[in-house]
Amino acid sequence: MSPFAKETLSKLIKFLEDEVYPAARVAHAQIPADPEARWKTVIPVIADLKEKAKKLGLWNLFLSKAHYPQFGVPLTNLEYGVMAELLGRGGAIASESVNCSAPDTGNMEVLARYASPEQQQKWLVPLLNGDIRSAFSMTERFGAHVVNVHSALELTICVVASSDATNIRTTIRQEGNEIVINGHKWYISGAGDPRCALHLVLGKSDPENKDKYRQQSIVIVPANAPGVKVVRAMSVFGYDDAPEGHCEVIYENVRVPIENLVYGWGKGFEIIQGRLGPGRIHHCMRSVGAAQQALDLMIQRVTNPAKKTFGKFLYEHGTVIADIAKSRAEIDAARLLVYSAALQIDKAKAKGALKEIGIAKFVVPSMACQVIDRAIQAYGAEGVSQDTPLAAMYAGLRTLRIADGPDAVHIQQIGQRELTRADALVKRQEEIRKREKVLAEHYKVKAHM
Amino acid sequence: MSPFAKETLSKLIKFLEDEVYPAARVAHAQIPADPEARWKTVIPVIADLKEKAKKLGLWNLFLSKAHYPQFGVPLTNLEYGVMAELLGRGGAIASESVNCSAPDTGNMEVLARYASPEQQQKWLVPLLNGDIRSAFSMTERFGAHVVNVHSALELTICVVASSDATNIRTTIRQEGNEIVINGHKWYISGAGDPRCALHLVLGKSDPENKDKYRQQSIVIVPANAPGVKVVRAMSVFGYDDAPEGHCEVIYENVRVPIENLVYGWGKGFEIIQGRLGPGRIHHCMRSVGAAQQALDLMIQRVTNPAKKTFGKFLYEHGTVIADIAKSRAEIDAARLLVYSAALQIDKAKAKGALKEIGIAKFVVPSMACQVIDRAIQAYGAEGVSQDTPLAAMYAGLRTLRIADGPDAVHIQQIGQRELTRADALVKRQEEIRKREKVLAEHYKVKAHM
Amino acid sequence: MSPFAKETLSKLIKFLEDEVYPAARVAHAQIPADPEARWKTVIPVIADLKEKAKKLGLWNLFLSKAHYPQFGVPLTNLEYGVMAELLGRGGAIASESVNCSAPDTGNMEVLARYASPEQQQKWLVPLLNGDIRSAFSMTERFGAHVVNVHSALELTICVVASSDATNIRTTIRQEGNEIVINGHKWYISGAGDPRCALHLVLGKSDPENKDKYRQQSIVIVPANAPGVKVVRAMSVFGYDDAPEGHCEVIYENVRVPIENLVYGWGKGFEIIQGRLGPGRIHHCMRSVGAAQQALDLMIQRVTNPAKKTFGKFLYEHGTVIADIAKSRAEIDAARLLVYSAALQIDKAKAKGALKEIGIAKFVVPSMACQVIDRAIQAYGAEGVSQDTPLAAMYAGLRTLRIADGPDAVHIQQIGQRELTRADALVKRQEEIRKREKVLAEHYKVKAHM
Amino acid sequence: MSPFAKETLSKLIKFLEDEVYPAARVAHAQIPADPEARWKTVIPVIADLKEKAKKLGLWNLFLSKAHYPQFGVPLTNLEYGVMAELLGRGGAIASESVNCSAPDTGNMEVLARYASPEQQQKWLVPLLNGDIRSAFSMTERFGAHVVNVHSALELTICVVASSDATNIRTTIRQEGNEIVINGHKWYISGAGDPRCALHLVLGKSDPENKDKYRQQSIVIVPANAPGVKVVRAMSVFGYDDAPEGHCEVIYENVRVPIENLVYGWGKGFEIIQGRLGPGRIHHCMRSVGAAQQALDLMIQRVTNPAKKTFGKFLYEHGTVIADIAKSRAEIDAARLLVYSAALQIDKAKAKGALKEIGIAKFVVPSMACQVIDRAIQAYGAEGVSQDTPLAAMYAGLRTLRIADGPDAVHIQQIGQRELTRADALVKRQEEIRKREKVLAEHYKVKAHM
Repeated sequence: MSPFAKETLSKLIKFLEDEVYPAARVAHAQIPADPEARWKTVIPVIADLKEKAKKLGLWNLFLSKAHYPQFGVPLTNLEYGVMAELLGRGGAIASESVNCSAPDTGNMEVLARYASPEQQQKWLVPLLNGDIRSAFSMTERFGAHVVNVHSALELTICVVASSDATNIRTTIRQEGNEIVINGHKWYISGAGDPRCALHLVLGKSDPENKDKYRQQSIVIVPANAPGVKVVRAMSVFGYDDAPEGHCEVIYENVRVPIENLVYGWGKGFEIIQGRLGPGRIHHCMRSVGAAQQALDLMIQRVTNPAKKTFGKFLYEHGTVIADIAKSRAEIDAARLLVYSAALQIDKAKAKGALKEIGIAKFVVPSMACQVIDRAIQAYGAEGVSQDTPLAAMYAGLRTLRIADGPDAVHIQQIGQRELTRADALVKRQEEIRKREKVLAEHYKVKAHM
Repeated sequence: MSPFAKETLSKLIKFLEDEVYPAARVAHAQIPADPEARWKTVIPVIADLKEKAKKLGLWNLFLSKAHYPQFGVPLTNLEYGVMAELLGRGGAIASESVNCSAPDTGNMEVLARYASPEQQQKWLVPLLNGDIRSAFSMTERFGAHVVNVHSALELTICVVASSDATNIRTTIRQEGNEIVINGHKWYISGAGDPRCALHLVLGKSDPENKDKYRQQSIVIVPANAPGVKVVRAMSVFGYDDAPEGHCEVIYENVRVPIENLVYGWGKGFEIIQGRLGPGRIHHCMRSVGAAQQALDLMIQRVTNPAKKTFGKFLYEHGTVIADIAKSRAEIDAARLLVYSAALQIDKAKAKGALKEIGIAKFVVPSMACQVIDRAIQAYGAEGVSQDTPLAAMYAGLRTLRIADGPDAVHIQQIGQRELTRADALVKRQEEIRKREKVLAEHYKVKAHM
Repeated sequence: MSPFAKETLSKLIKFLEDEVYPAARVAHAQIPADPEARWKTVIPVIADLKEKAKKLGLWNLFLSKAHYPQFGVPLTNLEYGVMAELLGRGGAIASESVNCSAPDTGNMEVLARYASPEQQQKWLVPLLNGDIRSAFSMTERFGAHVVNVHSALELTICVVASSDATNIRTTIRQEGNEIVINGHKWYISGAGDPRCALHLVLGKSDPENKDKYRQQSIVIVPANAPGVKVVRAMSVFGYDDAPEGHCEVIYENVRVPIENLVYGWGKGFEIIQGRLGPGRIHHCMRSVGAAQQALDLMIQRVTNPAKKTFGKFLYEHGTVIADIAKSRAEIDAARLLVYSAALQIDKAKAKGALKEIGIAKFVVPSMACQVIDRAIQAYGAEGVSQDTPLAAMYAGLRTLRIADGPDAVHIQQIGQRELTRADALVKRQEEIRKREKVLAEHYKVKAHM
Repeated sequence: MSPFAKETLSKLIKFLEDEVYPAARVAHAQIPADPEARWKTVIPVIADLKEKAKKLGLWNLFLSKAHYPQFGVPLTNLEYGVMAELLGRGGAIASESVNCSAPDTGNMEVLARYASPEQQQKWLVPLLNGDIRSAFSMTERFGAHVVNVHSALELTICVVASSDATNIRTTIRQEGNEIVINGHKWYISGAGDPRCALHLVLGKSDPENKDKYRQQSIVIVPANAPGVKVVRAMSVFGYDDAPEGHCEVIYENVRVPIENLVYGWGKGFEIIQGRLGPGRIHHCMRSVGAAQQALDLMIQRVTNPAKKTFGKFLYEHGTVIADIAKSRAEIDAARLLVYSAALQIDKAKAKGALKEIGIAKFVVPSMACQVIDRAIQAYGAEGVSQDTPLAAMYAGLRTLRIADGPDAVHIQQIGQRELTRADALVKRQEEIRKREKVLAEHYKVKAHM
């Protein structure tokens, strides 16, 4: 860790412990129960935390200077990984406090890499300042199997990288100096937020192009443009995640100036592939933190003298100690996998770290679900209630097994990649058999088969 | 199956298919979003279904005549088990439509067995008619480890059957011709319902009694008695389960006439033990149905041509077929365990079926959670949303692993029971060794060790 | 259970307890350590047990009269299932004592159903008498993926039922009044036994036949025919299972009279399909018994005062009680699945019970492996040694997951079968949606989606 | 990695690929089948490999100079970890070729640390030279639960570190200038080897000592001393692991000179604790290699065109790709855990790395068993036979879950260690609640509970 990283980390720890973790339930209490009002709320305590964090220099930590020299912070992805785990212990509020929330993070990466200077001035700068928020509008309502909520990597593999690119139904076409967008999307995270100022919308702009990876474009759509309708919030288990939400959105003859096209016509697929460069394992990093938090809560519960039954601590019953030991081992292993992926991204960019990223993505959220589930069981009915963060954490992590690319996609990718080793293995085996034959003759034995 | 059971079953199937399953989402739509109004709602479509069901004779099917001759229906527990599975496919609305909802079912069992004729007239008859609803008020706020939401069996084992009986803090004392109740409870299912007319409240009436199983009493408390305060609803994952809810309730100097004492002073523990006679595996029966419903939904999704990706059905990808096969096997095994327990209860009452009940209780809800979880994954983001019933089903079943007695309690009980076979096994082993010795001598060999 | 079955069962229990179980280690001690001699041994104690069993009428219990009226015993498959579980507790010796050992059982089924009266006189009668033993010679050395050791059902699905039938390389051709067999097989169970008198050999007799299910024939080959070479025994984990073994066998210009053709030219596939009619779940039945035996051993160990550590019984440590409870539940569920399959075979023959058979086949051996594995862990190093039967049991059961049809084949078959329910489910769902629409209009609500 | 480590590693890789891996089946073929002769064999190819390895400087790599300055090799434990994984791919022969076999490694650590210069000259030097082999004689026959075959760490925790130290029954007493040993041990690895020259025997020398950790002593017993009887070899699954074996040994009035006492009277427990300093995770390191080897074999099998069924590669069936992906992830995670433990041992000695060691010990062997088991299933019947190394690997790794300290001991230790964090967690939680209260008042909200 660099001296800067060390200093930032120790400031971050202090900020989280003193300011952010204590604010979690306050923030929750500031969201109105009223089904309308809750979507119009800017949570005061988070707004205040953002101000403090910015002053402390705890800001945009996710944006690595090595990858984004113009806008980034001098932290490696591994260094941010250590910090992101701590953010993950504090839930959504912690990430937002330091302007490291999805989908803004990925959107900032897109704008930093692909947007024109004018676009950057208008949209990236206020995002970097935390003044506005944003949505990434990709998943089609009534489309093929919905595999993605937040991130983009998997979609590139799963929907766009093949004939399924044809599944994008939203249309983007030029009319004079304007672009007209029509489409019906859903699971658009962040679109419910009153501060959401822009949607990055993926659509078909050239459906006849023979290269199906050049049929799509991405356009910046102001959230308040006429024709943009946020229909409803999709809930996740029972949670609506207001005020951000995961929304169903209709674009009905939405018109934006031609300047809002990002990077050029037919560049949609390329942008999606580039989105989430180093950011691809942010969710995993935070998931390790969430699991650690659940384990810490479990330990507090099972050692709580007020919760004794039959005169014994909860940890003296059943399989509690074994459950804790397994959780400890699973968290430690997952953390090492995430660090290993982060290091590999730092070394070889996301492209050179696909194996490590893929493994982390299917191992870590499942691990976290399991650890949280054990903690829930230790808390009894309280564990599924609003009086602990556990049930909401579970819902979020369970969703991640879909949203950050479904497990099956990563598993398939890693499995296939292993199969490519077959030729080399067979060749090596043949070499060994040749040498074996020589040896067997030398020793006059029959090495079987 | 008796002819009556067969006829009832076929009427029930028709009623569910034609009337109840189609009403599920209608019922949900009739619950207002407003955080106050939703707790004051009697859902119209359910009210209408109850009328229809009563006319069809599909009513109180859970109450077996063999156990409750005065009030019961001529169905064995096994016969009801087959029906309860079908109810389980339809969620809470199905059980309520035929007046087979917890906690009313357990409360009706209590009143049928232990209440005075006057109490039965006043409270049991309208419950049997479905005119009112009820709550069972047992779990202490700030008590020891909360292990129970709905049922009572496990509490008898886990909290009351030992020194933990002392954990009951609610006080019940006589003042003249009145009983005064003070206490703070939570996870009181059904207490939120506008139709809830009575709470069966468990409290300490004789804390100094040397026999700690005679310190408790149960009193009928009208829901509208002064001093009864429903503080808030506990949510389960993000769901509040309005209008019924799982509520926090304070009893502050609540006064009821002496006639409201159930069965006599010091009988609280005995009543709790007797509550849920044959009803002890109702939840398990319904859980099998829920799992079957999830599997059916999964099959529909993975064979849906509109959800193809890369030109392949979802079932052609990854481990989907294996997941379906495992779900099939797990559901079938669980159903057989539940039937086996139901049969044993019919033969030997709940007391003679503790092994079968215990096994069903820790196997079935976990199985259902797993099957539902696979279905969720098959549905992608839609699976965790409000557009399928899967996430809510998962939340309910996950809670059951706590509420119907935590897994660990059942596991411990079954494990301990197995250990009691040790003596007989050792004796048999010794017999075998003796015979072995004779044989070894006869054949002049040394049987090792 | 019929009175005959009840009487037989109680005689069997007595015989097993008094005679067979005590003989297990004696039998083992009677197998010479010498690598040659052990293959020439007829184990004396087993020979004596066979005589006793025959006199008691405990003989050929597997051969159900309902399926084989001429030769069978008046027991249903379910009734035999209960007995087979008890045989399974006693390992190979128990089954052999009552002439119910694979592969003889399947071969007797073949001969009873397909052989000519002359063939039956010559080969079936001595097999039924337990005077000789037999092998079923199917699996090709250097063939495709080896999926089968003992049974035949899966091969019909997996190798023969498709283009893979072409994988059979052994040739069978007529020359004058003789049949000439050339081939190289392995995993031929029982071929090592000195009493093995015949091989039922599957080979290609008509490789050009357009119907690839009529290219194969089965021939009776006397074990001592010139050209039959038992090359070596394949071991299973470190066990050679002498004197029976699982052997590699070469047929080099073996000549048998034309009368040894079974059932006719081109009938090989049909015979394989018919082999193991009711016998298809014999292995599963015995596996339940093996698991029960392992659990019983585990219980004895963990309650043994001589094995206390730190002053505590083993069952007081770690997760032992939970492991025992899970084993109890898993065994009970597996037993119910096996009974359910046996009952279905009794009702609808093996063809009508494919679902139940398939589920039992992939659930039961895995279950037994897991239960045995837990028992091994409870016994520590002794559990993997020759001083308990556990390691050998594990090896046998683990092999069953391959030999009785590999798990994946059964899983695939059950998964596919579930998918066929899709159409009916979709139709039902559509009916429900139609009714829902009517209801929603009636109540003037919008049932979502 | 130091330049020396890098060079050594590349020499080792070449040596293993060119010489050792090809010799595995040759070595096996050189062990006679005869039950007597196999225990008198020095395997020629291994003897030759040892000569070559010594010349290449690939020798005693396990003995880290940092821990044993006088005898060690300048490699850190982490550096050796990378090499040990490669040794693990080659089975027992690979470790033996470079003189890194248990139990010699642990015994060399004992002699290097605790033996007198004379003892070192007589026993350690020839062990370091690979001229003799040795046994570590600890586990009592008829003792408490047998938990240990190879290593010693766990026994110190599990048997000796408590009242169970009293379980040691072997007696060691002085008579004049001699020590007399009487005892009955088993699972003494290496005692069967014709080259085994010494046993390090643990026994009770001062049973009345009040400090029960000073009642034991360790004595060097020449393997050929009168009264040393190797009774039999304990088999592991079906394997006897000749010529080394895991033997039952009786010491009957064995007399050795007083000079053979190691380190002093009453030092037995201290020595056991010190044995396996850095060596505590050697087994884990090799287990990762074994798992990797199994995965490599699986990949070769499922991509083998000769093993296609139904015209498809095996990897196109069922869950094969998912199984491979999971194996990949599990191996990578386990390797990182082992590296992390090795690094921690390098930093803080074994005592400072108990957490990392404990986690590795219960995670790695189970992981390896699982990966090997999947490979077995992919190979079908061949997988359990002698024609692949898989079944023997499984047997070895399964035994490790007992021999290298039973899983339960490590799990318990790690779980207990986590519980010690409770106080700090509670304190932190209280701090957070305090700050929360301030915040809640500031914002005038009620942060619930």
